[in-house]
Amino acid sequence: MSAEAILRTHVRPLAADATLLGRCLDECGACETTCTICADACLAEDDVRDLVHCIRLCLDCADACAAAVRILGRQTDPHPPTQLNTLEACLAACRACADECELHSHHHEHCRLSAEECRRCERACVELRSVLAAH
Amino acid sequence: MSAEAILRTHVRPLAADATLLGRCLDECGACETTCTICADACLAEDDVRDLVHCIRLCLDCADACAAAVRILGRQTDPHPPTQLNTLEACLAACRACADECELHSHHHEHCRLSAEECRRCERACVELRSVLAAH
Amino acid sequence: MSAEAILRTHVRPLAADATLLGRCLDECGACETTCTICADACLAEDDVRDLVHCIRLCLDCADACAAAVRILGRQTDPHPPTQLNTLEACLAACRACADECELHSHHHEHCRLSAEECRRCERACVELRSVLAAH
Amino acid sequence: MSAEAILRTHVRPLAADATLLGRCLDECGACETTCTICADACLAEDDVRDLVHCIRLCLDCADACAAAVRILGRQTDPHPPTQLNTLEACLAACRACADECELHSHHHEHCRLSAEECRRCERACVELRSVLAAH
Repeated sequence: MSAEAILRTHVRPLAADATLLGRCLDECGACETTCTICADACLAEDDVRDLVHCIRLCLDCADACAAAVRILGRQTDPHPPTQLNTLEACLAACRACADECELHSHHHEHCRLSAEECRRCERACVELRSVLAAH
Repeated sequence: MSAEAILRTHVRPLAADATLLGRCLDECGACETTCTICADACLAEDDVRDLVHCIRLCLDCADACAAAVRILGRQTDPHPPTQLNTLEACLAACRACADECELHSHHHEHCRLSAEECRRCERACVELRSVLAAH
Repeated sequence: MSAEAILRTHVRPLAADATLLGRCLDECGACETTCTICADACLAEDDVRDLVHCIRLCLDCADACAAAVRILGRQTDPHPPTQLNTLEACLAACRACADECELHSHHHEHCRLSAEECRRCERACVELRSVLAAH
Repeated sequence: MSAEAILRTHVRPLAADATLLGRCLDECGACETTCTICADACLAEDDVRDLVHCIRLCLDCADACAAAVRILGRQTDPHPPTQLNTLEACLAACRACADECELHSHHHEHCRLSAEECRRCERACVELRSVLAAH
């Protein structure tokens, strides 16, 4: 189920358009799973020593996305500085992970898929930031 | 992106059919987000005192789903007892949360949606358990 | 066990003094647990409707601290923007939660203890930020 | 701050003795941090290929401990099957991680420290289980 549907049932006014916010939460959730699996798939490769930087950034990205789903998903009495810094951390982690995974895309299909998902999540975070920062 | 696609790129044999495992991870991710939002939406309701049990079970369900995505998503050298107990915890949390949210479905649309998602996730966990437990 | 001891065994140079970094990780861990319990203890109070803002900020604080332990604890190829934004989110969440919990300190002992722990964690984050931001 | 102090302020009866429960939560928190750092320290070692199994189990252990702190820390309307399965998953993850880290204790000091912490956490989980399972 997309996050948008349940966001629309909240009695409080949302911090952002439900479609935009819902898409960001959905991408963060998908990105957490994708990066968890990419880090693990990298660990199983023969050239794991060349993938250490990639694994680290995938682990960070999964953790930053996890925090974003929780903190940005809550719409009851949100605290803007916590939300904005959490979003910035998620955006930075997605960008760094996408950049690194792209370097391994030709050798490892999981890195290609992870780079794609991180880029989608980065874009969703950028869009949400432009709205949240304006408040 | 569905988890199935990236699972299929893993060099190790998967602990379960990629479609089945991917569906369980996708549902756990969606259920974590849905339950986080349902707990928060309940907090904003006038009858929050009647929703305390629901909020607690939604918070548990989100945490149990989060652990399941991480631990069941990893396919490099998995530890079956950790995976099975994590899956059982997730299944138990989804079932309890679905049962409770259903009681509030007529009053609160977020509880109706959360109950639906918890039921879907519970079914995906039951299917995965039948495969993992057979190994 | 304090985080400092294991940080000192890392083969890479640490992003900050081991004592300072270790203290921040220890406080984030303690703060996550304390805020999880304070949110839950608030849920059980008769005046839960007056504690909604407190519960929300405790949940945020627990999630922001969890991300900080993970992302700041890793010393292999760290990504400074992800680390700094994660630290800022944690600091903002601790400060907001301490401010709110203090308002309920005279009525609820768990809020008094949670405010104390959030303040300690906030100070540890401020100290670590002054070092990380200088790099 | 130890979890015991804030647990004692909860208005609901605790699922277990506050000292026993608090110790388990404290050890789970310390173990999550320790295993996160051990996995990361292993990634930086020259013999990372020999540490793949250790890294995987450290990541699992951190995630299982994280879920335990959240789900076992809540004392408002707990759901026994979710709590017991979460505790079993944590116990299984700590035991497997301790067993594996001990194999690397002579070469890597972080593995020796991680093994020690996992064993302490395993013991705290075993003690808590004997009480929770009796209810």
